[in-house]
Amino acid sequence: MHLRAFALGLVLAGVSPAAETPPPSPAMSPIHGLVLHGGAGVITRENLTPELEAQYREDLGRALAAGHAVLAGGGTALDAVIATIRILEDSPRFNAGHGAVLNGEGRCELDASLMDGRTLAAGAVAGVTRVRNPITLARAVMERSPHVLFAGAGAERFAEQVGGIELVPNEYFQTERRREELLRAQKKEREQANRRAALGGPGGPVFATIDENDSLDVERKFGTVGCVALDQHGNLAAGTSTGGMTNKKFGRVGDSPLIGAGTYAANATCAVSATGHGEYFIRVGVARDIAAQVEYLGRPLAEAAANTLAKVKALGGDGGVIAIDRSGNIALPFNTPGMYRAHHLAGQTPEIAIFR
Amino acid sequence: MHLRAFALGLVLAGVSPAAETPPPSPAMSPIHGLVLHGGAGVITRENLTPELEAQYREDLGRALAAGHAVLAGGGTALDAVIATIRILEDSPRFNAGHGAVLNGEGRCELDASLMDGRTLAAGAVAGVTRVRNPITLARAVMERSPHVLFAGAGAERFAEQVGGIELVPNEYFQTERRREELLRAQKKEREQANRRAALGGPGGPVFATIDENDSLDVERKFGTVGCVALDQHGNLAAGTSTGGMTNKKFGRVGDSPLIGAGTYAANATCAVSATGHGEYFIRVGVARDIAAQVEYLGRPLAEAAANTLAKVKALGGDGGVIAIDRSGNIALPFNTPGMYRAHHLAGQTPEIAIFR
Repeated sequence: MHLRAFALGLVLAGVSPAAETPPPSPAMSPIHGLVLHGGAGVITRENLTPELEAQYREDLGRALAAGHAVLAGGGTALDAVIATIRILEDSPRFNAGHGAVLNGEGRCELDASLMDGRTLAAGAVAGVTRVRNPITLARAVMERSPHVLFAGAGAERFAEQVGGIELVPNEYFQTERRREELLRAQKKEREQANRRAALGGPGGPVFATIDENDSLDVERKFGTVGCVALDQHGNLAAGTSTGGMTNKKFGRVGDSPLIGAGTYAANATCAVSATGHGEYFIRVGVARDIAAQVEYLGRPLAEAAANTLAKVKALGGDGGVIAIDRSGNIALPFNTPGMYRAHHLAGQTPEIAIFR
Repeated sequence: MHLRAFALGLVLAGVSPAAETPPPSPAMSPIHGLVLHGGAGVITRENLTPELEAQYREDLGRALAAGHAVLAGGGTALDAVIATIRILEDSPRFNAGHGAVLNGEGRCELDASLMDGRTLAAGAVAGVTRVRNPITLARAVMERSPHVLFAGAGAERFAEQVGGIELVPNEYFQTERRREELLRAQKKEREQANRRAALGGPGGPVFATIDENDSLDVERKFGTVGCVALDQHGNLAAGTSTGGMTNKKFGRVGDSPLIGAGTYAANATCAVSATGHGEYFIRVGVARDIAAQVEYLGRPLAEAAANTLAKVKALGGDGGVIAIDRSGNIALPFNTPGMYRAHHLAGQTPEIAIFR
């Protein structure tokens, strides 16, 4: 699961470049790589039919190939991350874009963020409801505004004014599968409220304690998508996109659109994208914490990622992260039964995995 | 500016407890302390009349005394932070609560966050328009929901349902001084748009480049308020509250409501609240970065804070931070001409300062 590509140069030295890979310019390094995730959670062979598994693998493979093609062609890590995430957003199977989970009102509210490790520029949006590919709007925030984060209706006004952002009705995102998940979550929520009322406690819709959070993620699946990349110019980038949690209320924002929590990239350290129970990832500051260990301790990437994930677990949180550093070392730890994931390092074969 | 209270025990040994300070219980340490800020920016003697300076000092003193009283009475750092910030939110002179800056539509949109260093629990709200004291809503999010961050209208629905949160019309926050600042910012924005149009560039309201950001903070004052505290139980807490930037658009969210950027607290390291040009503070992950240096390098607090602020400056950002650790060391660095600030450590005299 934790791979290190330190021998990559040696491997490449004995391999002629693939047809689609132009020879690198003198300033470019042949090292490049990309890691993606499609969410972590209770993903087991028992609850995934072979047919559905094949569909997931097909999606993951297409997303990986799109990002790899950008990198192999000498493109930027930023472009590779966007190309990868757009495909996962467009797939109905992941909790981002089309196929995102439904909030308590039966609508999709999407969050995304993006960070350029070269400049530390970043862009993010929270709670958008009409932007087909939220990751492209995060890029527009980064490149075409002086700001980092736009939330809610304001973010969509920006999308309209900045141009070039495809807007769709909210129904575009909604799928039957997510409707069923919402109904199950709401049924469970009502049962909890009745139980509280029977015990003389408050029966209303306001959450009473953190322990009653189950109704928010009844299937314990966090289908957030994300990607981290290293390009031939030596630059890192990271991006994350999500629909958040089923039955979420009150404009809840998780870690995905928060720079330092769900997403971080700095050439000096690493690029990270997280998926999981967002509140715990915010409290630990997951992405920034992994980068901090690399920055201050020179800790190997896989060790730093595992250490941060252990902090999340100690607080009670589940999930996973993907990370890549400037040398092409990667890490994909998770503490759930499964995580949709894939990676492709230059000169190696692409790998796709789902279960532990 | 960078103070260290390492001799606090010695100082206390020769001083009889003040009348309002009950003797600590055996489990409690006599060390406690509180630091607050009311924003950093171009605050100089030339642009602050003696009369206005006296008003600021009076506000800062009242806020400091309120927080200190909580700590001296054996209360929690969390309660001290809230007591302090509420007073600053209620004052018309700071950019938080009553007297917050106006957004591009002439309304106030408020952000706040809070973190408990004992449990790493956190709560935050972004873009609320009717909550008199946003810091109290941040606390409700932390204590009465399973979530960390609520944004926009959803946050206000939560405020209505959770109860005990005072709601006011948006006009309560608006002041004549902020109206004038908005008009000046919008005039400058129009001039920039005309200049762009004359040069053949886009003349619309969408920001073209980061360099044109001046209209957003025409006076280069960042009046965000914040507080960090160490209580006699050895627990740390941090909180931040703001109206953001004058003439802000598109639901812009700065660093103040973002855990890890504007606010962080962990008993193992330190408590931090930031003020300044929020986008740079997000990109650096300021509050988490200071804590990370303490955590991973054992770096003295003042050195860690100065180092992080230097990173912000290197990107082009201005502002300041306040921080306190479990030993009662404090730091209040800023890279602007002034920062409204005050601190009170047990057994020492309270200090209030504005200029460099």
